[in-house]
Amino acid sequence: MFQRVAIIGLGLIGGSIGLALRRMQAAVEVLGYDFGKGVCDRACRVGAIDQSCDTLADTVGGAELVILATPVGAMHRLLQELAPVLSPGTVVTDVASTKAQVIRWAEELLPENVSFIGGHPMAGLEVSGIDVADAQLFRGRIYCLTPTAHTRPAAVSKVCSLVEILGARVHFLDAVAHDKQVASISHLPFLASVALMNTVAEDRTWDDAALLAASGFRDTARLAAGNPEMYRDICLTNSTAIVDWLDKYIESLEILREHVARHDGHVDEIFRQARQRRLEWQDMQHDAEDDRR
Amino acid sequence: MFQRVAIIGLGLIGGSIGLALRRMQAAVEVLGYDFGKGVCDRACRVGAIDQSCDTLADTVGGAELVILATPVGAMHRLLQELAPVLSPGTVVTDVASTKAQVIRWAEELLPENVSFIGGHPMAGLEVSGIDVADAQLFRGRIYCLTPTAHTRPAAVSKVCSLVEILGARVHFLDAVAHDKQVASISHLPFLASVALMNTVAEDRTWDDAALLAASGFRDTARLAAGNPEMYRDICLTNSTAIVDWLDKYIESLEILREHVARHDGHVDEIFRQARQRRLEWQDMQHDAEDDRR
Repeated sequence: MFQRVAIIGLGLIGGSIGLALRRMQAAVEVLGYDFGKGVCDRACRVGAIDQSCDTLADTVGGAELVILATPVGAMHRLLQELAPVLSPGTVVTDVASTKAQVIRWAEELLPENVSFIGGHPMAGLEVSGIDVADAQLFRGRIYCLTPTAHTRPAAVSKVCSLVEILGARVHFLDAVAHDKQVASISHLPFLASVALMNTVAEDRTWDDAALLAASGFRDTARLAAGNPEMYRDICLTNSTAIVDWLDKYIESLEILREHVARHDGHVDEIFRQARQRRLEWQDMQHDAEDDRR
Repeated sequence: MFQRVAIIGLGLIGGSIGLALRRMQAAVEVLGYDFGKGVCDRACRVGAIDQSCDTLADTVGGAELVILATPVGAMHRLLQELAPVLSPGTVVTDVASTKAQVIRWAEELLPENVSFIGGHPMAGLEVSGIDVADAQLFRGRIYCLTPTAHTRPAAVSKVCSLVEILGARVHFLDAVAHDKQVASISHLPFLASVALMNTVAEDRTWDDAALLAASGFRDTARLAAGNPEMYRDICLTNSTAIVDWLDKYIESLEILREHVARHDGHVDEIFRQARQRRLEWQDMQHDAEDDRR
């Protein structure tokens, strides 16, 4: 059981963590803060927090655990503002999609007497905002934790308790490895989707082609509707890994282009490999789904 | 009302056309032929055809309308074999995903006394085979017809009647324009999906990254599970258009790569444009869905 927990940023993720903590009666009190107007009131109303605060200092003062659930673009300034007002012994964690940069900021800016550990819950994020917060959002999901050589055991154990309360599964990994992996399965697919949407829609054939586009196009270009600011922040904080993957992706497309250009009757071997890999991944996903039930 | 209709190839598309024709009592008899063992029997059993035939000659002899619903890779040989056995006055149409090449073959191989018109129903194809054939498959969908300067009015009017029976909407366009448009909204998304799947799965990080992959990856890489032989045939018969789109797509990815590499804080403008275009297309799709109901 936690004493005081503070959540900074009450969107889908912050709000869902608050709801789960309160539903499970896992904290004496959950305090909340959000930079958006009226968000705290809504968070109180839906039961995601016990009390909203007017200042960051009031929110985090005396907290056992502080959860940073703001966009990664707000994180540097937030850590600067939090540094002087955190109580000694407080454990701080975040939920941002990229980890190495956030950890560098935290280790540079936070005082010695607080402990930080980076986290990233892998929960579907097709919607956003406090109004869609859900205590069950993390159930059965993987929750990445990225401790470093400087992370104190107390931080690890407190955030592991939090993950358990959320019903998620802890997955420890190195921050740089995390960033490289999510770049491949999340950031690259987003950019592939954006480039696809813009490529076809920039052409003068689009008005007609749009009529013919069906489910294949719908799915492949779905991520292009993602939050532009969130993905900008991701690109800014994970550019090395993203550029590496883009280079590999472009190379793979160049190879396909050559096969198609020279009418290679064996191009289906590449397609068969992709199909096989996709089906294997799908089977693995289904097994994981079964485990969740 | 048609007299005798012959369907060559009794997969999802051919089978669904047969079911619709028989359900609507729109033909005196529907004869069927398939190269696959046992497919004709199953087609009879599900009611997609009245009678199966042992030879192509028996199937198409005396037919008013012949529908070619085989993979495009089988089309050249099929047209060669049909040429000597078609009856004078027969209208022939196909349902292949690429049109210009098929039309060139048809105009080259079929005798003067039969009429050909290319067609392409835009129906979802996530499954295949006679067992999933559905009389409603084409309801409300666009059905492309690509007449040329050589197409006879009788062919146009007969195939328009067929489209009406299927509950689909005729969409006339030039074959080359068709191939360019479907390359953008169907063939390019497939190749983008294949390259994505292979790029991430070829890396040694994949075993770990696969665990973190969620709905975004699932949708973007879904098409990679498509039928390898079908897409090989598509690449072979539509290579010019596909290569053009791949070049544009790669260029668009190169531009994104540069923005990410130089930490461009305005990269969200590109994302916002893609988002806007995606949402506009989605709205248009919803309107079309409403029209279908």
